[in-house]
Amino acid sequence: MPFANVCLSPVLLAHYDISKSIVVIIDVLRATSTIVTALNNGAKYVVPVENVNECIKIGEKLNAITAGERDGKVLPGLKYGNSPSEYSKNKIENKILVITTTNGTRLLHLAKKQNAKEIVIGSFLNETALVEYLFSKNQSIMLACAGWKDSVNIEDMLFAGSIIEKIEKKFTVDCDSALISKEMYQLWQKKGESFLANTSHFKRLERLGLIEDIRLCFKSDTHPVVPIYKEGNLVLG
Amino acid sequence: MPFANVCLSPVLLAHYDISKSIVVIIDVLRATSTIVTALNNGAKYVVPVENVNECIKIGEKLNAITAGERDGKVLPGLKYGNSPSEYSKNKIENKILVITTTNGTRLLHLAKKQNAKEIVIGSFLNETALVEYLFSKNQSIMLACAGWKDSVNIEDMLFAGSIIEKIEKKFTVDCDSALISKEMYQLWQKKGESFLANTSHFKRLERLGLIEDIRLCFKSDTHPVVPIYKEGNLVLG
Repeated sequence: MPFANVCLSPVLLAHYDISKSIVVIIDVLRATSTIVTALNNGAKYVVPVENVNECIKIGEKLNAITAGERDGKVLPGLKYGNSPSEYSKNKIENKILVITTTNGTRLLHLAKKQNAKEIVIGSFLNETALVEYLFSKNQSIMLACAGWKDSVNIEDMLFAGSIIEKIEKKFTVDCDSALISKEMYQLWQKKGESFLANTSHFKRLERLGLIEDIRLCFKSDTHPVVPIYKEGNLVLG
Repeated sequence: MPFANVCLSPVLLAHYDISKSIVVIIDVLRATSTIVTALNNGAKYVVPVENVNECIKIGEKLNAITAGERDGKVLPGLKYGNSPSEYSKNKIENKILVITTTNGTRLLHLAKKQNAKEIVIGSFLNETALVEYLFSKNQSIMLACAGWKDSVNIEDMLFAGSIIEKIEKKFTVDCDSALISKEMYQLWQKKGESFLANTSHFKRLERLGLIEDIRLCFKSDTHPVVPIYKEGNLVLG
């Protein structure tokens, strides 16, 4: 059986050989939820870039929408922020989106540098579509959590745990990070929303007035698509 | 209030400023359990070293007992292994122990290089003594988990979670790793021993015939001592 692992921080990714694995990039709040939303709502493709300058430069070149924020505010020179609520069909359909985020796009580029066999995007919004995709490929998987500035965070762990629970019968799961993620996911399912109230990212987004974004990002299967990284762009598989 | 944080892998330690923190080194299976046992049973002091050559060299110089193993076997040139069962009073009293381990002693040296304000040793065996010590100092704390070859492991997380549960009212706990550790600890308390049966280290020690060591390392408060790192040695506080 192929393996399924969980990597809880971008810093830990270097310790794994991912050259034979499909790497699922997980940045639930909010990069991967936003990318999934944009593609589901008809974006031609999404270009994930590492920094603001690159975002502006490539945005101009492609005549694209540019997006990126820090501390809840759209970065100077860019058009939109990192909220999935900004990418409705009438705004994004048939357009190209160039996006930079604090954690998610950086992790994607780390995975690329480490020669990941394939890179796909995961969020609660496209969970079932992702699980079906992973089953159809039947290859080893690395569920890579973006965390927050290299620290472990809970929401990415919960999504990784949800995936582990759904795929574990068809994969060899032999790592404590996967086990911990699954246990935390199941605990969250029992305890409900209050479970997240003390977490660092929840409190951060609450301070920024972005609680509605959290609700949006935790909806299940609203967007049945699987963004795949191909030649520098995220496209639908 | 002082802060209490949890760091789940030695690789993540570099991302924290620990210059004002007491760093608790946690390597439950088995380095820190063994160090606590040796000091509780009368060892003069313990010298944690990074590798085998250093262990042999310093051992000869100090006329000390040398210890270290890989894959469950005592390393060539050393006398004992990493099991707390080897350090009974009649073997270790009034002797110096020089020890090298895969994860714990390495983490201790990382904390030293990062200018930790103070370094102490934590294990279930000395938990209450440690908690009382941390209360008496009233300074910020970093609970540093040794993990396994830089991966996150569950047993060190459980101990960190146990400490968080006991101290959280007198410390500011504002990190997801601490929250996750506490939740996992409380889940383990509910589920009992079976909770650990699928973990990577449990399976590894089971393969090596060392299940009895796990039971030893999970006993609470058998050794009411707090090893403190002073001038290159671990001594009793």
